[in-house]
Amino acid sequence: MAKGNKLTSRAENYSEWYNEIVKKADLAENSEVRGCMVIKPYGYAIWERMQRTLDDMFKETGHVNAYFPLFIPKSFLSKEADHVEGFAKECAVVTHYRLKNDPDGKGVVVDPEAKLEEELIVRPTSETIIWSTYRNWIQSYRDLPILVNQWANVVRWELRTRMFLRTAEFLWQEGHTAHATKEEAVEESIKMLNVYAEFAEKTMAVPVVKGAKSERERFAGALDTYTIEGLMQDGKALQCGTSHFLGQNFAKAFDVKFANQNNQEEYVWATSWGVSTRLMGALIMTHSDDSGLVLPPALAPHQVVMIPIYRKDEERALVMEKMNEIATSLKAAGIRVKIDDDDTKRAGWKFAEWELKGVPVRLALGPRDLENGKIEVARRDTQTKEVVDITDHFDQTIKELLDNVQEGIYEKALKFREDNTRKVDTWEEFTAALEDDIPGFLLAHWDGTTETEEKIQNESKATIRCIPMDGEEEDGKCVYSGKPSKRRVLFAKAY
Amino acid sequence: MAKGNKLTSRAENYSEWYNEIVKKADLAENSEVRGCMVIKPYGYAIWERMQRTLDDMFKETGHVNAYFPLFIPKSFLSKEADHVEGFAKECAVVTHYRLKNDPDGKGVVVDPEAKLEEELIVRPTSETIIWSTYRNWIQSYRDLPILVNQWANVVRWELRTRMFLRTAEFLWQEGHTAHATKEEAVEESIKMLNVYAEFAEKTMAVPVVKGAKSERERFAGALDTYTIEGLMQDGKALQCGTSHFLGQNFAKAFDVKFANQNNQEEYVWATSWGVSTRLMGALIMTHSDDSGLVLPPALAPHQVVMIPIYRKDEERALVMEKMNEIATSLKAAGIRVKIDDDDTKRAGWKFAEWELKGVPVRLALGPRDLENGKIEVARRDTQTKEVVDITDHFDQTIKELLDNVQEGIYEKALKFREDNTRKVDTWEEFTAALEDDIPGFLLAHWDGTTETEEKIQNESKATIRCIPMDGEEEDGKCVYSGKPSKRRVLFAKAY
Repeated sequence: MAKGNKLTSRAENYSEWYNEIVKKADLAENSEVRGCMVIKPYGYAIWERMQRTLDDMFKETGHVNAYFPLFIPKSFLSKEADHVEGFAKECAVVTHYRLKNDPDGKGVVVDPEAKLEEELIVRPTSETIIWSTYRNWIQSYRDLPILVNQWANVVRWELRTRMFLRTAEFLWQEGHTAHATKEEAVEESIKMLNVYAEFAEKTMAVPVVKGAKSERERFAGALDTYTIEGLMQDGKALQCGTSHFLGQNFAKAFDVKFANQNNQEEYVWATSWGVSTRLMGALIMTHSDDSGLVLPPALAPHQVVMIPIYRKDEERALVMEKMNEIATSLKAAGIRVKIDDDDTKRAGWKFAEWELKGVPVRLALGPRDLENGKIEVARRDTQTKEVVDITDHFDQTIKELLDNVQEGIYEKALKFREDNTRKVDTWEEFTAALEDDIPGFLLAHWDGTTETEEKIQNESKATIRCIPMDGEEEDGKCVYSGKPSKRRVLFAKAY
Repeated sequence: MAKGNKLTSRAENYSEWYNEIVKKADLAENSEVRGCMVIKPYGYAIWERMQRTLDDMFKETGHVNAYFPLFIPKSFLSKEADHVEGFAKECAVVTHYRLKNDPDGKGVVVDPEAKLEEELIVRPTSETIIWSTYRNWIQSYRDLPILVNQWANVVRWELRTRMFLRTAEFLWQEGHTAHATKEEAVEESIKMLNVYAEFAEKTMAVPVVKGAKSERERFAGALDTYTIEGLMQDGKALQCGTSHFLGQNFAKAFDVKFANQNNQEEYVWATSWGVSTRLMGALIMTHSDDSGLVLPPALAPHQVVMIPIYRKDEERALVMEKMNEIATSLKAAGIRVKIDDDDTKRAGWKFAEWELKGVPVRLALGPRDLENGKIEVARRDTQTKEVVDITDHFDQTIKELLDNVQEGIYEKALKFREDNTRKVDTWEEFTAALEDDIPGFLLAHWDGTTETEEKIQNESKATIRCIPMDGEEEDGKCVYSGKPSKRRVLFAKAY
């Protein structure tokens, strides 16, 4: 690890760079529980803003929140055949409900007499417990649709973990909706994918490709899985969110039927959709640079940090007075401002610290600026600064600057993705592209078979990220098998 | 259970009345996992408002949120001696991390080869995992105070559960703060108790008595536990929230020291404080009546429900037009309004339904009202209604009405508590009072010993709820032992 506040550069070791940002920007750290992280206050404040924005978007689209149990009886997992294959394996299993004093000495031991009749699984996802509940909520078409979301923690026992990207416990939201018709359920799954894409692009400033997963990459139990895929700076894809059309699979597994308008019984149609703290990983890896985190203003806990410059106490008093005045006017304009007036730290140290933490705009004010009615405005994303007049509409200047930053980092990320998305037509081009420093997104023809998909992955490590929704029909030949294909799909190495 | 929407009355069977409100008002239901409940959307919407209000209050008092692991290594629990006695017993224990297909046939079984080296406990509270983390966060006095809160689910394996009041899994917040001095930690624990009391009284409209717990009733590991106690309509007390001064116990158990300003090492001082979904139980049992839930406007998902009255389609169109106009103006005034325009239900059915769900104000508008420029305004708490003019400042009329309801239900609950708080001076008075239909709060002298406290509980079922903070010094004799006492303490039967 690089010493002090200096980061390992992306070129030197991308993976180490990522770990250092997470740690040094005070986002998260590994806990003493294997695979579980502690989300630190600064990281959690960003996640809270994500939650709040998404929650508002869910509510605007007619959803309500609810809460279902953490534990799932083991037998529930086996009710949907594909689901058990996908999810029932690497789970935390509760087998006992009591400890007792160790008869041999200190500490506590599991009480063998407190063994559960049926083991409980800590939820890896909640389809099973929720559909067993929906059975009691749904009798007639009048009870539909059910548009419920849950904010919760889930556990999937992962052997190789990385903070935010893959942890044993993570935080997420999971929407679980129930519908009277197939059309309505499909429409819902696509609607929520669009909500995710809008959130990623507008709020996180992360451009994403929307598409459908291949059969092999679908969620366990889904008929269709839709995804948004981002491209990270090392040229690897990150799946940022998924939305599933579940057909009637869970309704059949849990016997959830409704009487339609003709009073005939039908199975209910389902969707589920989720995004998680993994989005924090996408946020970090899309925008940050060798100086640290770069945050979009929409999610930054502090949008503006103000740093006073002074030598003597009288200077400090004057500078602080003006700074407080400016801060008040910025706050009144709805801008999140922090004044860093800690007098045990030098200004240079503070500059580096807030740069590391990704605050979009830094204002520095010294005695000479004060005399001239000026202030230094520095922009984190471009690492540029200028001295400007403190006008009456300075709050508007800063508001516009923040909007520019939000747009600027999106445009930069979009250009990166466009520069690193290639159409390839032969297996040689395909494998050569993946050898690049930035392998990127590859648009290639595929014959549509799982067999070819597996061979491509085994030989190249690239997977089909999605069949893009905005892709055009085009005659071509599969990049691997040479068989005919009607459209290009998106390949990449992925997290 | 009473049939249809009619509730069992409180007089008939208080406990059944409570269960029916929880179920029929769509607040929560038991799940298929023993002791765990499903919080339904209407109930969760109330909890979300509680969360939002409390979270704002925590942030205003300088706290930030973070997130710590769900799992706690078994050995952590035994590090603080009192804590292990109080918490390590009835817990959910994770012993394995994998399932496998049952070799004998269908379903899945626990894979015996995937046994954890050290069992993990699903957190019953997070002092241990958090203080093991704070060790790395704290070196010097400059790192203090740490003012962190966590919103989380916790699990305590309860044998006898009741929805919201006592469930195996529940949702809560837990604040965990670290301080350089004892004085500051004590001040923090009392500050947060005051935050809880203000929230209970202003937002929930639930009057509470603030006080300190007796040594026997303290949190496991605390030097002092402060509590807010509410009085339910059956005359039993409900502990609504607690705040603990933990001294240096957890710092010593997890070796958390800091260098003070003189560069000497000291152990850190701690507090923790929490409220949970149990507050939903307090809310229900304080205000509701035999017609159903009564909600304070500050927490009601819908503050006003509007019901159109009509026979013919033309009438419906006219009534709905006016209703939408009024709804728009109420919403613009910041009032949460729902128009129930479901035309498959009769108006009378809707009246009963929204009464059951506790909506503070109901507006009904029919064709004759429309002609006369009038509207029927019904108030849930007093079950009174009147026909009023639709004036230009109707939104202000409703705003004031909502304020009156908020205040009115608080005053009513306060009067109930005052009417049912008695000073008793002899053991005969004490036991006789507890035999009443509404045993209520008893203010009695106590000799200060755990021995007497236990005997009182064994013989009367009453416990010391708290030593009230606003109690006056007064010479007296212990109601049980006759020994001298300097102040009255608050006794009650309790949930």
